[in-house]
Amino acid sequence: MKEFVGEATSGENGVRLMFIHVNWGSSTQAQMYKTALSSAHSLARTGEHVKNYWPQMLVLTGRAQARPALVDLAHLITKAGSLMIVADISQNKLTHKERATRARTNDEWLQERKVRAFCAGIDGLSFELGARALVQCTGVGRLAPNVLLMGYKSDWATAPANDLTSYFNVLHTAFENRLAVAILRVPGGLECGALAVEDTPTAGHTATSAGSGELRVRQNIMHADSDLDIRGDSQPSSRHNLSNLLSLTTSRSFTISETKKEKTRKPMDIHRQIVYRASNGVELSKDQLTQMSIFQRKQVLLRVPDGKESGTLDVWWLYDDGGLTILLPYILSQRSTWSNVKLRVFALANRRHEMELEERNMANLLSKFRIDYSSLTMVQDITEPPQPETKKLFDDLTKKFTDQSIGEEYRISETEMLTLAEKTNRQLRLRELMLANSKEARLIIMSLPMPRKGSVSAPLYMAWLEMLSRDLPPVLFVRGNHTSVLTFYS
Amino acid sequence: MKEFVGEATSGENGVRLMFIHVNWGSSTQAQMYKTALSSAHSLARTGEHVKNYWPQMLVLTGRAQARPALVDLAHLITKAGSLMIVADISQNKLTHKERATRARTNDEWLQERKVRAFCAGIDGLSFELGARALVQCTGVGRLAPNVLLMGYKSDWATAPANDLTSYFNVLHTAFENRLAVAILRVPGGLECGALAVEDTPTAGHTATSAGSGELRVRQNIMHADSDLDIRGDSQPSSRHNLSNLLSLTTSRSFTISETKKEKTRKPMDIHRQIVYRASNGVELSKDQLTQMSIFQRKQVLLRVPDGKESGTLDVWWLYDDGGLTILLPYILSQRSTWSNVKLRVFALANRRHEMELEERNMANLLSKFRIDYSSLTMVQDITEPPQPETKKLFDDLTKKFTDQSIGEEYRISETEMLTLAEKTNRQLRLRELMLANSKEARLIIMSLPMPRKGSVSAPLYMAWLEMLSRDLPPVLFVRGNHTSVLTFYS
Repeated sequence: MKEFVGEATSGENGVRLMFIHVNWGSSTQAQMYKTALSSAHSLARTGEHVKNYWPQMLVLTGRAQARPALVDLAHLITKAGSLMIVADISQNKLTHKERATRARTNDEWLQERKVRAFCAGIDGLSFELGARALVQCTGVGRLAPNVLLMGYKSDWATAPANDLTSYFNVLHTAFENRLAVAILRVPGGLECGALAVEDTPTAGHTATSAGSGELRVRQNIMHADSDLDIRGDSQPSSRHNLSNLLSLTTSRSFTISETKKEKTRKPMDIHRQIVYRASNGVELSKDQLTQMSIFQRKQVLLRVPDGKESGTLDVWWLYDDGGLTILLPYILSQRSTWSNVKLRVFALANRRHEMELEERNMANLLSKFRIDYSSLTMVQDITEPPQPETKKLFDDLTKKFTDQSIGEEYRISETEMLTLAEKTNRQLRLRELMLANSKEARLIIMSLPMPRKGSVSAPLYMAWLEMLSRDLPPVLFVRGNHTSVLTFYS
Repeated sequence: MKEFVGEATSGENGVRLMFIHVNWGSSTQAQMYKTALSSAHSLARTGEHVKNYWPQMLVLTGRAQARPALVDLAHLITKAGSLMIVADISQNKLTHKERATRARTNDEWLQERKVRAFCAGIDGLSFELGARALVQCTGVGRLAPNVLLMGYKSDWATAPANDLTSYFNVLHTAFENRLAVAILRVPGGLECGALAVEDTPTAGHTATSAGSGELRVRQNIMHADSDLDIRGDSQPSSRHNLSNLLSLTTSRSFTISETKKEKTRKPMDIHRQIVYRASNGVELSKDQLTQMSIFQRKQVLLRVPDGKESGTLDVWWLYDDGGLTILLPYILSQRSTWSNVKLRVFALANRRHEMELEERNMANLLSKFRIDYSSLTMVQDITEPPQPETKKLFDDLTKKFTDQSIGEEYRISETEMLTLAEKTNRQLRLRELMLANSKEARLIIMSLPMPRKGSVSAPLYMAWLEMLSRDLPPVLFVRGNHTSVLTFYS
C-alpha cells in the first residue's frame, strides 16, 4: 500500500508534486488495523446470542462535558469491556473545522476523565432525525449499540411542543429499532439532562432539546511558564480545580470519600479554569457539582441518626423486559466504587394471599441469576387509590395540557385521561411507595413505563415520569427490549 | 455477565419468567467481542497517518443485489483487508420486520458473492439526509469510511429537480466531511447506477434517487425435496442460473474466461430463479448482464484485427487530489482478475515546449510510487476548442436547463454558462481525447471534476460528467480529499 502527500504548484491544469513522504506505512499500525477489522468481521459472523449479551451504550450527551453524570454512568456500566459511544447531535450544519474541534474537545475530555468510549457526531439534522441516524448507523457489525441512554428532559412542561414531541419520538425510535432505553434523572437545581455547554462562541447551536440549562466551561490554556491570569472576572471559588471543589463538598445524602491523588499535574492544568453556570448565568453551587459527579465518587454507607441505612441502590423491578432492569444494578454493584452499597430489590405482589409464594419465587429467580441482593421487598397495595395530595400534584402538572386552548398534538384529551386513568393511578401510587421506601437511596433503578404508540401522548407520559422521579434521589429508568418482550410493544 | 430470556405470563402487573437459558456465555465468543472492541480502541488511539491510509469504502448501493457492479468494484478494492460498508437508504419508515428482512437479504447476498463487508441500513430519512447520516455516523473510531462510492445518476436529465439536487448535495456532503468520492458509470441500456430491486411486494419504497431502472430478483425458495416449480410465467432463459448465462455471453468489448466451478450446489439454489428486468419490464439482455458482472470476471487482453490492444485500464490523472486517482487503479492491477490488464496513464501537458520535461517528471513520479504502468501519455491540446459535433451534443444535453421557463434552482443561468465556459470546453475537449484514446479500454479511471459550491449548478455539473462518460467504456470518476488538496475546495 503506497500513499503520498502532494502539493500542487500550478493550479488545476497539471500535476506537480512536492514529496513529503514516500514510504511504506508502519507495519505495527497496519497490523493493528487488520486485527481490528478482521476481529470485527469474526464477531459479526458469530451471530447474536443471549448468552453473549453486552450492554453496548449509545449515550446522547451532546457535548460530552455537558452531561458528566451521563458519561460517568455509561462508563461504570461499560468499563468492564463493552462498547460505549458518546453521541453529539448538532442541529445546525457545521463546517469541517467546527466539527473537528467539537470531536477533538469531546475526545480529549473523555480521555482526561479516563473514559474509554468512541465519539460519534452528526450535524445538520434535527435532534429527532439525528438520534434516529445514530441509533441505526453507528458502529460496525455487532459492535453497535443496543442500549440508548439519555438525560431526563426536565423542562418538558415548558419546552416548545416540537421539542417535547421530538424527545418522545426518540424513545419510540429506539424501541422500534430494538434498542433498550435508559433515562437518567439527577435532582438538583440544574438537571443532569438540562445541560449544554458552549466553550467557543463561534460554534453552532447545540441540540439542547433535552434541557433548558446551560453549562459553561472556560479554558484558558496558557503557556506553562506563564503566571499571568488573563481573566479578571473570575470568582474566587472558580479558580480552584473542580476536583478540589468536590472534596470540600458535603451534602445530606452524599458523602465523599474521594481519595485525592495528588499526582504531579500536567502544566496546562494549572491554568484551566472551569466555571459551571446554570442557564440563568449563576455559577453552580457545590451541591450541584456534587450531583454531577455522583457516578465518579466512591459510594459509602451512611448511618443517619435514626439508625436507618441510607445510601442503598434500590431496584424497582416492575415489568419483565428481558432482565436489563436487574442486570444494570448488578453490574453497578460489581464496580469498586459501588461495591459497598447495598442492593435492595422491590417487586410487585399481585395477589395479597399469595404474597409468600410470590416472594419465594422472586427470591428463587434472583438467586438463579446469582444476583447478590441485601433485601427483597414485595410491594402490595399498588392498586389502592393514591392520596389526594399526590393526585393534586399530578393535576397541577397536567393542568396546562388538558386545557382546550392548547394545540391538538400537544394536548392530553379527556378520553386519554379516562382510558389511562388506571395506569396513571398506578404511577401515582408507585410514587408514594417510592417516597416511603427509597427516599434515602443513593440511586433508584426502576422499570420505565412503556410509551405505547398511539395510546399515550407525550405530555401525559412525561407527567408519569415526573411523578416517578420528582423529589427523589437520582433515578435511572430502564426498559429492555428483548425479543421476549415483543408482545408488550405494539 | 449474566442474561436470560424471559417470558411474562401475567401481563404488566408482575414478573413471571420462564427460564430458557441461565448460564454463562461462551467464553470464546466473549473473547472475540473483547478482542474486536479493544483492537478498535487501540486503532483509534494510533491517530491517522498518511502512511497508514486505507481506502475504506462506503458504498451507496441501496439493496446490495440491485447494484452488483458497485459491490464488486468496492470488494476488489477493499478485499486485501480494508473496511467496506454497504449502505441501504430507505426513504420510508420501515417496521422492524421489514428492516430485519432487508438487512438479512443484503447480508446473505453478500455472503453468497463472497464479499466481506458490513451492512448499514437507514430508513425514514431522505436520500440526502440518509447519506449524510451514513457519512457521519457509520463505523467506530477509525474503522470508518473515507471514500464514498456511488452509482452514476443516469437519469439526471429527466429526474425530478429534487432528486437531482439531492444527488448533487450528497457529493458536497461527502467532500465537506473530508471523504473522497468515487462515481461509477457502466454503459448499457440499464445503467449500473439505475437499478433498484424489489423482491417483496410489501417492502417499502427503495431510495431510487440514483436511478430510473428497476431490477427484479424473484426467489422461490422451496423445500429441497420438492420438484414443483410454482412459477408458470418464467421465460426459458430465466430458468438458468445467472452464472451459466454469463458464460454463454460474448460481446465486442468483453471476453469471458470465467472458470466454471461446478461445485455441488446447495439444494436451495436449484429453485432460485433470478429474473433481471429493466424498468420497462423487459428482461435484461445477456449483454447487460455481462456489464453487471464486469468486476467479477477475469479480465484478459483481446487483440482486435487491426493489431491494437484493447482491454486496458486507462487512468486519466488530471488533478492532484492526494493520489487516490492513481492508488485505486494500482490496487485493481494487483488483483488476480485484473493483473493481465495493462495500466496506461494519461496526464495533461501544460506547456507544449516543455512536453518532454513534464513527461520525464511524471514518469519519475510514477516510478517513485512504484506504479507499474505500461505506457504514459502526456496529452496536449486540451485548451483547443472542441469540435462542433461535441459542442452540439453538449448543447442538446443542457438545452432543457437553459430554458427561461424552468425553475430557478434547477436552471443553468447564462452567467454561469459564460463564467464556466472555459471549464465546459475543457470537459468537451477531454471527451474528444478520451474517445480518441480510451474507447477500447476495459475501464477508465479519471479525476472527477470538483463540484465547487455556489459556482456550478447541479445540471451543468451532471452535463460535464455525461460528456466525460457517454459512449465510453465503464468509467470510474475519482476525487480524493486529502489535506493537501484543501486549497482546491472552498
